[in-house]
Amino acid sequence: MAEQRIGIIMSGVTGRMGTNQHLIRSILAIMKQGGVRVSPELTLMPDPILVGRNEDKLRALAEAHGPDVIGKPLRYTTDLDAALANKDDTVFFDASATQYRRRFVEAAAKAGKHIYCEKPTATTFDEAIDIARIVESAGVKNGVVQDKLWLPGIRKLRTLIAQGFFGEILAVKGDFGYWVFSGEMPDQPAQRPSWNYRVEDGGGIMVDMFCHWQYVIDTVFEGECGPIESLVSWANIDLKSRVDEQGKAYKATADDSAYAIFRLKNGVVCQFNSSWCTRVRRDDLLTIQVDGTKGSAVAGLRECYIQPLGATPKPVWNPDIPQPIDFYEGWQKVPEQTSYDNAFKVQWEFFLRHVALDEPFRWTVREAAKGVLLAELGLKSWQEKRWMDVEAL
Amino acid sequence: MAEQRIGIIMSGVTGRMGTNQHLIRSILAIMKQGGVRVSPELTLMPDPILVGRNEDKLRALAEAHGPDVIGKPLRYTTDLDAALANKDDTVFFDASATQYRRRFVEAAAKAGKHIYCEKPTATTFDEAIDIARIVESAGVKNGVVQDKLWLPGIRKLRTLIAQGFFGEILAVKGDFGYWVFSGEMPDQPAQRPSWNYRVEDGGGIMVDMFCHWQYVIDTVFEGECGPIESLVSWANIDLKSRVDEQGKAYKATADDSAYAIFRLKNGVVCQFNSSWCTRVRRDDLLTIQVDGTKGSAVAGLRECYIQPLGATPKPVWNPDIPQPIDFYEGWQKVPEQTSYDNAFKVQWEFFLRHVALDEPFRWTVREAAKGVLLAELGLKSWQEKRWMDVEAL
Amino acid sequence: MAEQRIGIIMSGVTGRMGTNQHLIRSILAIMKQGGVRVSPELTLMPDPILVGRNEDKLRALAEAHGPDVIGKPLRYTTDLDAALANKDDTVFFDASATQYRRRFVEAAAKAGKHIYCEKPTATTFDEAIDIARIVESAGVKNGVVQDKLWLPGIRKLRTLIAQGFFGEILAVKGDFGYWVFSGEMPDQPAQRPSWNYRVEDGGGIMVDMFCHWQYVIDTVFEGECGPIESLVSWANIDLKSRVDEQGKAYKATADDSAYAIFRLKNGVVCQFNSSWCTRVRRDDLLTIQVDGTKGSAVAGLRECYIQPLGATPKPVWNPDIPQPIDFYEGWQKVPEQTSYDNAFKVQWEFFLRHVALDEPFRWTVREAAKGVLLAELGLKSWQEKRWMDVEAL
Amino acid sequence: MAEQRIGIIMSGVTGRMGTNQHLIRSILAIMKQGGVRVSPELTLMPDPILVGRNEDKLRALAEAHGPDVIGKPLRYTTDLDAALANKDDTVFFDASATQYRRRFVEAAAKAGKHIYCEKPTATTFDEAIDIARIVESAGVKNGVVQDKLWLPGIRKLRTLIAQGFFGEILAVKGDFGYWVFSGEMPDQPAQRPSWNYRVEDGGGIMVDMFCHWQYVIDTVFEGECGPIESLVSWANIDLKSRVDEQGKAYKATADDSAYAIFRLKNGVVCQFNSSWCTRVRRDDLLTIQVDGTKGSAVAGLRECYIQPLGATPKPVWNPDIPQPIDFYEGWQKVPEQTSYDNAFKVQWEFFLRHVALDEPFRWTVREAAKGVLLAELGLKSWQEKRWMDVEAL
Repeated sequence: MAEQRIGIIMSGVTGRMGTNQHLIRSILAIMKQGGVRVSPELTLMPDPILVGRNEDKLRALAEAHGPDVIGKPLRYTTDLDAALANKDDTVFFDASATQYRRRFVEAAAKAGKHIYCEKPTATTFDEAIDIARIVESAGVKNGVVQDKLWLPGIRKLRTLIAQGFFGEILAVKGDFGYWVFSGEMPDQPAQRPSWNYRVEDGGGIMVDMFCHWQYVIDTVFEGECGPIESLVSWANIDLKSRVDEQGKAYKATADDSAYAIFRLKNGVVCQFNSSWCTRVRRDDLLTIQVDGTKGSAVAGLRECYIQPLGATPKPVWNPDIPQPIDFYEGWQKVPEQTSYDNAFKVQWEFFLRHVALDEPFRWTVREAAKGVLLAELGLKSWQEKRWMDVEAL
Repeated sequence: MAEQRIGIIMSGVTGRMGTNQHLIRSILAIMKQGGVRVSPELTLMPDPILVGRNEDKLRALAEAHGPDVIGKPLRYTTDLDAALANKDDTVFFDASATQYRRRFVEAAAKAGKHIYCEKPTATTFDEAIDIARIVESAGVKNGVVQDKLWLPGIRKLRTLIAQGFFGEILAVKGDFGYWVFSGEMPDQPAQRPSWNYRVEDGGGIMVDMFCHWQYVIDTVFEGECGPIESLVSWANIDLKSRVDEQGKAYKATADDSAYAIFRLKNGVVCQFNSSWCTRVRRDDLLTIQVDGTKGSAVAGLRECYIQPLGATPKPVWNPDIPQPIDFYEGWQKVPEQTSYDNAFKVQWEFFLRHVALDEPFRWTVREAAKGVLLAELGLKSWQEKRWMDVEAL
Repeated sequence: MAEQRIGIIMSGVTGRMGTNQHLIRSILAIMKQGGVRVSPELTLMPDPILVGRNEDKLRALAEAHGPDVIGKPLRYTTDLDAALANKDDTVFFDASATQYRRRFVEAAAKAGKHIYCEKPTATTFDEAIDIARIVESAGVKNGVVQDKLWLPGIRKLRTLIAQGFFGEILAVKGDFGYWVFSGEMPDQPAQRPSWNYRVEDGGGIMVDMFCHWQYVIDTVFEGECGPIESLVSWANIDLKSRVDEQGKAYKATADDSAYAIFRLKNGVVCQFNSSWCTRVRRDDLLTIQVDGTKGSAVAGLRECYIQPLGATPKPVWNPDIPQPIDFYEGWQKVPEQTSYDNAFKVQWEFFLRHVALDEPFRWTVREAAKGVLLAELGLKSWQEKRWMDVEAL
Repeated sequence: MAEQRIGIIMSGVTGRMGTNQHLIRSILAIMKQGGVRVSPELTLMPDPILVGRNEDKLRALAEAHGPDVIGKPLRYTTDLDAALANKDDTVFFDASATQYRRRFVEAAAKAGKHIYCEKPTATTFDEAIDIARIVESAGVKNGVVQDKLWLPGIRKLRTLIAQGFFGEILAVKGDFGYWVFSGEMPDQPAQRPSWNYRVEDGGGIMVDMFCHWQYVIDTVFEGECGPIESLVSWANIDLKSRVDEQGKAYKATADDSAYAIFRLKNGVVCQFNSSWCTRVRRDDLLTIQVDGTKGSAVAGLRECYIQPLGATPKPVWNPDIPQPIDFYEGWQKVPEQTSYDNAFKVQWEFFLRHVALDEPFRWTVREAAKGVLLAELGLKSWQEKRWMDVEAL
């Protein structure tokens, strides 16, 4: 059996997401499982080299995680140009901060590397389209992370739609969020980085989440109802002051809660709330309820609960007595019918097949520009207090 | 101890709401408990006479419920004019269909009766203001039903606000609705009247519910945050066809789902969804979540659950493992600390005291016009696809 | 990155507390984690040398625990003078029996060592102040162990106070203790050393625990209510006879239960019971209940349970029926919102930073004298059967 | 079988306690069960007449509860003198407010009635002794309510002591109290009358509870340890302002929390906390823990939990890990071994037997003066900040 090596230059993986989701749970996990077996004859085997500015951090990361998988530290370098010059490494992955994305991607694309990167690709739609043009004119394969599509809960939702479970889909409600501590109490440290709450550093919940809502909605409901045709949204800076990683109070300038009404092409409404200032009395950190003529479903990150028309209770409005119906009991948990791999790893495997075998890969840099567009329109809708149309690209 | 009789002409109480909530659970319940004791010396005792067009229905109602309370059938008549001419009956109550409200109220006010009636007072704001002017220029006392204010769940919410439980209130989310069967299956009859789904008959969920949201929001959050300053809303006719009381299919022309973003004066957002085409995976038919810096609450019709800052969990986003936090367990049920009377009866008792003792009563016909206005602006926001300002009256 | 070595002469660490809490879980744990990283450029690295009289014990300890961390046995010596003469070891730590404290501390301070030691610093207040003067006039940095402040349960309590959870604090109740077996039954050996129960050897529960209550109360409630202004206390020798480590019965001469009413400056009462002759029907070995206008909390060593005003039940006194309220259910566990290091290690890290960086350190030998004072006043209150004022030092 | 009628003049039973505990659950319950059968030949049958000032209230009470038991309204009168003049009614019971006790009791005793009354008998010890002298010199039988002695939980405790379960009793801890709402929130009405919180109206938790603690401690631990020999106590007015029955704010002038150390004759300490401003994280509203050499017990109102020496766990102090012992699991519930009648009714039956059969009855008016004394000494200990000796009467 042949093993095709794919050298991957990984940039920006010293951050939390890069380390955990991309390096450890995706690339190293693929190596550990013996690569991606694409046929009885062929296995694709990634071979990463870490690039970054802080040599200490790179070394620590390489030493901490390499031996476990390849018996020796991983490759790493602070010399990006040298890395790009190495013909044996054909893929460039970028998980650095959004403001550096374009520079890295452009350099790598011009060096002929295939491009895979984190979302959002840019902070403005114009730049996102620019980056798309850059990789397209360089003629390299390219893709952007859209991990939520492979969350088990979302996959179960897609299966239900494919089964026709919902009949006609009538409405969709998304509820995302949880309480992000302000950091004011030493023993209740904030669980997200402070730049998320400063608009001058690229923060804001709309910018962070709307690109997820775009590909989730457009993909899950495509054919049936979508894509998103117009939206109205509003946001707030709920907590005006927070405390940063150094224990210093700072002014929060970015939106930390956002409310949106997305109208799909066929008229269905997707109402989505996103907040870092809410407490969770729902099944999960993200729940998406789909109501249809024949049944409804509520999907979380992993689980999904359904209630078909035949099991729908008929409530009576009588507040004089305690509610006789337990509204949680009337739902059935969708059982596990397959095994769910890490969502990031799933998409990595698709991308590696795309690179090696030329299999189709729809989550391109151009496609990802739609997410940036939705966030941009969301902000504009808020600032100008009006509905916005989403033009087809 | 003296007993002051208050004769009440009750119109439109043969309908479901009128019979159950106003006649049986309010007026008859007050009679059964020995009247409203307002001081050691004085008790107010209502004495109802039912008026309507269908004598059979009136008689049946009077015979079914009178003997249990007063030992004989209740008074009833089909002659409204004669009833209004009786100087001994000083209050006129109207629970008839909205389109008849003005005619009945005007006649009664001109006959010098104090007016108490169901909401909405009218289908347009202009007419609602007109009716307010009519009762005011007649110089009679007047009031409109705003029962949701006395739901135990809403009262618990108000107590929590008064206690300062929330710290600064950040955001409010309302979720109302349940599945109203289409009536197509003989064994799953619709549980609401068909006119609710025909705009030409005054139907529509915005018209029905927005006047509730207006007084709930304005009252519960007054002082703290409110009133409502602007809104954007959208609605849909989710089920296009339904089957009526006679088993005949009809075209649904009224909105049966509505999505609104209400912005309060101090910037707080109240995001409210209302739907008759949703399935309930929440604590109750109506849930209102209030998020504040020091804690959150989720109120249903009767129960209310709270989570203070100190008990707020710190979730980690890791969809690779089942969610380790049970997000329902971190909430405490607010215990019963008083006894809660029927919400309609509570307001009736306030109105009877207002009539007899001249105690203040803020829920006047003019006040209720605000609810009609909010519904009208909601519809306009939908039709014109834009934000609407709510002018102070 | 630079590493600053701090040589620490550790005296009296062959005892249970010294070995477990100070050597293994603090100093060796700090070494194992790579020292205390105080900035990207600097790490403080302790380097201990054990001193004591029993060479066998020292060697065993050094061999058992050193190799695991530094790859070879730890340094040790029975020659205290030689150890103090070594200029490279700048810190002296003492965990020997209280009666030897002064001698050791004085010798070390005169040798110019920074002093860190166990509580109590002395058995009388006069001596405690003396020791404070000694270290102060020697001009060395100094500190005393006050570990209870970093118990997770106490930290949660402090966070709740900082959040304003309690509203106005009304009262505090502390309950400490458990059953210390008398040693009479061979299979139920005593779990504490016998000298604890002989006053002539420095035993007694007041002497042992009141210095903890002093810093816990003064620190946790400072600003809000404290410090302690006066107290009345009583003690008992509950078990008159016990059996020692050699299986020999001895007369217990020291108090093994104590009851105190501490009155804080603003009038709040802290009622504390301490006993080695009680059985535990509480959440933990130590529980502290704080009652406030807006809520109450009960903290144990690690966990803390809260009940806000809004969730406070309204009990009815009716012993004719089983109590319908489960009084444990109305409380919520404060979730883990940070990670809690060993309490002794936390304070060690503060002291090392104080030594190396001159950061402030408030738990000095002088400060610790207050704890000795409280124990002394407690004993006097018992002997003279009267209230005692606590004078500010 | 003969039935001996005992006519009882009941004064002050229109109050909550008088109505529920004495009239309905004691006297009427005894009548309903067919009297007190004292031998196969003889049954004692009470025959009450209600006296009071408010005729409306008396009539309502007599009509509401008489027919259910005797098929007709109870006797009642507003003419106390006439009632006392009736030779057929030989017992006078008084549950009126404490300040009226002496006047009523004196009049009745002088009329030759046997006296039974509520506690406290007076607000000062001198007056309590006076009242004792009055009834003694009138030569009438007399008794005072001491209901807590017949609480099932206390009875179980007494049984355990009688069994020798505790070995030598070492210490006793009592915890009484719960949160009495301030009445400031309309939906959280106060559950106790406002006079309890005004010292000028006889309020205060010491006055209310110390007479209970006196007879509970002296009776439960008599022979073994008691009686109470000295005490030190402290109290506070925790909530400075409350809202009364008419919705009006008033200044709270009476103690609503009290802390006491009672020292028994043999040196055992009973430490008791009482508070109306605490939240309950205990088994019940009142819990009494008794620790002994052979075992411990925690009694609530009805239940009692025990832990014998052989089942006593040996805890380890290690806050680095979650407490491995569930301290609630190591206790066993004392099973029901008899049926427990209402505590008030039990004592009523003893008193009726005392009246009719001359059986001994130890809970006399003189005995009850001890409770008043304890409360008086408690207040003095607080005011003068010192220990108080309890002299034998």
